Amino acid sequence: MNIKMIIQYDGTDFHGSQIQPSVRTVQEEIQKCLFQLFGTKVLTIFSGRTDAGVHAKQQTINFKIDSSQIPADKIIHPLNNILPKDILALSSEEVSEDFNSRFAAKKRIYRYFIRNTHDIFRNRYSLIHPYKIDIDQFNIWAKIFIGEKDFQSYCSAKAEVKHYICKITELKFFQHEDEVVMEIHGNRFLHNMVRIIISSFMELNRNTLNIDDIQRILDKKDRIYAPKTMSPKGLFLWEVIY
Amino acid sequence: MNIKMIIQYDGTDFHGSQIQPSVRTVQEEIQKCLFQLFGTKVLTIFSGRTDAGVHAKQQTINFKIDSSQIPADKIIHPLNNILPKDILALSSEEVSEDFNSRFAAKKRIYRYFIRNTHDIFRNRYSLIHPYKIDIDQFNIWAKIFIGEKDFQSYCSAKAEVKHYICKITELKFFQHEDEVVMEIHGNRFLHNMVRIIISSFMELNRNTLNIDDIQRILDKKDRIYAPKTMSPKGLFLWEVIY
Repeated sequence: MNIKMIIQYDGTDFHGSQIQPSVRTVQEEIQKCLFQLFGTKVLTIFSGRTDAGVHAKQQTINFKIDSSQIPADKIIHPLNNILPKDILALSSEEVSEDFNSRFAAKKRIYRYFIRNTHDIFRNRYSLIHPYKIDIDQFNIWAKIFIGEKDFQSYCSAKAEVKHYICKITELKFFQHEDEVVMEIHGNRFLHNMVRIIISSFMELNRNTLNIDDIQRILDKKDRIYAPKTMSPKGLFLWEVIY
Repeated sequence: MNIKMIIQYDGTDFHGSQIQPSVRTVQEEIQKCLFQLFGTKVLTIFSGRTDAGVHAKQQTINFKIDSSQIPADKIIHPLNNILPKDILALSSEEVSEDFNSRFAAKKRIYRYFIRNTHDIFRNRYSLIHPYKIDIDQFNIWAKIFIGEKDFQSYCSAKAEVKHYICKITELKFFQHEDEVVMEIHGNRFLHNMVRIIISSFMELNRNTLNIDDIQRILDKKDRIYAPKTMSPKGLFLWEVIY
């Protein structure tokens, strides 16, 4: 049977979601617990990778098991009893055998949280940007990224992908309590893409780049021209839509 | 000179605010850093103790130093560079020599956060209560605790105090996103008092106690009759008013 599961994790103490040798990853921790639960090696498929330090409010995964004595929607309970405290399973259900959480995803939503002053309860989850943010202005600038575009300049030079075309259907900023939130919706995201996009807004806000520069950077299709990759700690994979 | 400082801390990994031998406390961590900064032993006075696991959104402390090469309002910057990541200094100022953060406090405000479902980003900061909460009903029940009353039943039996009279000037519940918040204002709070009060509401909500039982518990003036002490993790010292 094929199980679709929604999980949360605090990315602070992980070297990203994807299994790598000799570092702590979300995938390895979950697979260790699934092995403990089902007594057999279980391979998980994630909707997408998240980098070291990036959080997930809702990440979707799926995995196949021969059978389960636990009803599909109850698997999260014994699993949560053994998961480390920075991973939580939110829901599980049986889905058709051909469901693949990566390839079936229609839309991914990310949020990036920015704040003006330190707060110990938000330090793991938001970036300090000590400049005033004009949300209306940010939302005007945001239009440059919307649409189907080549985001090669906004992709880590290390990434190996067939193409750099991504369709951004929504990009908006809004106030949430004492923080500013960027929410971005897209069919796919390249490695570091959201963190380079938010970085562009920080540069625009400091007047170190203007909107024409951003267009030129996009047109260059080369990572070297875009601003630095912003810290992962303000970034959340917020939801994956199927 | 006498320095008044507002600090924040995440109580999860502390054995409370007050210095005790061989355990990690907020006071000891701060005093270690003040020693490093000023090169001399500095004694801090806290507005009040917080228990192991209790957080502070704003705790007020004061301490005396001979002199400072750093302007009083700038002390927080070098201090924050050396404080552990679960303590943050928010502001500092010079105050009159006779100011004492404990005795000068007019009002203490605490908040307790309750949620219905798990969320990994709130697990350190809120209590899971799996029953529906009727906020209007909670605010009616809340009236029983308001006023100047003897709270001996609501005080840890281990506490050594001269008397148990506390004046509660406000006690209200409100919704905040997907959590219910209890906010309580009082001139003083006894050891574990807020955590036993919130516990009473949980019992009222589960119908294991009714409001007449609560009055009888208050009248008994004996800890043994009141409900158990609720987890510290949902509790924040929110603000101290002078």
